[in-house]
Amino acid sequence: MPFAISDPADPRIEPYRAVRERDLVGRQHRFVAEGEVVLRVLLRQSRFTIESLLLAEGRAESLSDALALLPPDVPVYTANRQVMDAIVGFPIHRGILAIARRPSLPPVEEILAQLPEKALVVGLIGLTNHDNVGGIFRNAAAFGADAVLLDRETCDPLYRKAIRVSVGGALVVPFTRAPSAEALLRALEAASFEVIALSPSGKEVLSQIRPSRRTALLLGAEGPGLPHGLLEKTRSVSIPMSGGFDSLNVATTSGIALHHLTHG
Amino acid sequence: MPFAISDPADPRIEPYRAVRERDLVGRQHRFVAEGEVVLRVLLRQSRFTIESLLLAEGRAESLSDALALLPPDVPVYTANRQVMDAIVGFPIHRGILAIARRPSLPPVEEILAQLPEKALVVGLIGLTNHDNVGGIFRNAAAFGADAVLLDRETCDPLYRKAIRVSVGGALVVPFTRAPSAEALLRALEAASFEVIALSPSGKEVLSQIRPSRRTALLLGAEGPGLPHGLLEKTRSVSIPMSGGFDSLNVATTSGIALHHLTHG
Repeated sequence: MPFAISDPADPRIEPYRAVRERDLVGRQHRFVAEGEVVLRVLLRQSRFTIESLLLAEGRAESLSDALALLPPDVPVYTANRQVMDAIVGFPIHRGILAIARRPSLPPVEEILAQLPEKALVVGLIGLTNHDNVGGIFRNAAAFGADAVLLDRETCDPLYRKAIRVSVGGALVVPFTRAPSAEALLRALEAASFEVIALSPSGKEVLSQIRPSRRTALLLGAEGPGLPHGLLEKTRSVSIPMSGGFDSLNVATTSGIALHHLTHG
Repeated sequence: MPFAISDPADPRIEPYRAVRERDLVGRQHRFVAEGEVVLRVLLRQSRFTIESLLLAEGRAESLSDALALLPPDVPVYTANRQVMDAIVGFPIHRGILAIARRPSLPPVEEILAQLPEKALVVGLIGLTNHDNVGGIFRNAAAFGADAVLLDRETCDPLYRKAIRVSVGGALVVPFTRAPSAEALLRALEAASFEVIALSPSGKEVLSQIRPSRRTALLLGAEGPGLPHGLLEKTRSVSIPMSGGFDSLNVATTSGIALHHLTHG
């Protein structure tokens, strides 16, 4: 039975207050998921503990099949649109928010140790754009990548917008962060991964690559790309393009490479 | 020699006034291109006639190599940031705008008749999201697609944001609009194209497809996808996904399919 909230200052919905301002600061122990598609992934497929839901009036009915999966001790709050907007701080058209617990990230070595013998992981170096990181998680989920590894500079996959762009993929694919790109590479090599670094200057061509039993795909930010030192130590691979138009979005690149490695 | 504009009401820069409001209404005979990357594509690779440029003070110097390609009769206006923002109606961080002429679109049959014997085209049905259309043009340019054909519902590739997302691809790849999806399909068949329709319910798998000499790739909007009637009349093809996460962005899908058809 949902709890109806009529006062935006109600202390029970404190974590939903000023969503955007807190997005900017970053949440240490929680994250916010929004919208029906993402909530359904959070309820059905993710490994995260949900703390509470806040729904616009009327949304609970259309979600009842998904809400049946919610542990009975997790509170569901409802509010009319006006109260919900006042809590959140902006018009929240989707009318669906969840707060979940952000676990501490395991060491890269620990995630790698848990992977099956045949495995495919994605490594992200210096990706500071939430749309791109979200898009890459969407593709990683779609093609069944076993994990995504981030360097220190890559932005947070549990940022609200990254989760939304990932269509929930950021809630599905296990990820963690390495202290540096070099540490990430060492951990992959120690776990017997063949490391493929995508770069417009790559020495081999993607369509000629056959995946190894354990393959890691490294992607850098559009523009700077992967650091030169990293390309020297890995198998560098390019996607040939046409007529001087040498420009692919990095999330699209991840989709092309993951499709090739899983179905090529 | 650029013309310095000091009065936001100067009649010479009338086409740059209230950019966003005009974006919403749509421009019949012109379009706006913004930012350095797009301007460089417009100057070097596109088929469009530039009417004028408006640059923030100081930008002309950093663009001098590209501006050397501008026909001498095309006026270049400069303004300080404050005047430029007042003209445009919002803070225009990139400080680079161009107005170009939008030609009338040829019939689909005319574009198809001009293509080489071996050709690859992309058909878009009901794509109303400018990011996705921009992303698809970026991929079409990257993989050298010969043309993009749009149905009536698909949004304008020369919308400012679509051009920006396409990184100029919308200025490079020829496109036109068919009166309907059915007319588009008929024109493709009449021009001996094998039509491949991408759909999660496709009967064949992308990785098994070998391109014909003339291949057309049809894409529908995320969510509704391609109309059932169209799938029945074409070779329907899916991209298999993993573990119930059946979700790819349509621009990413275009990149995967174009890469496969050109390099697979």
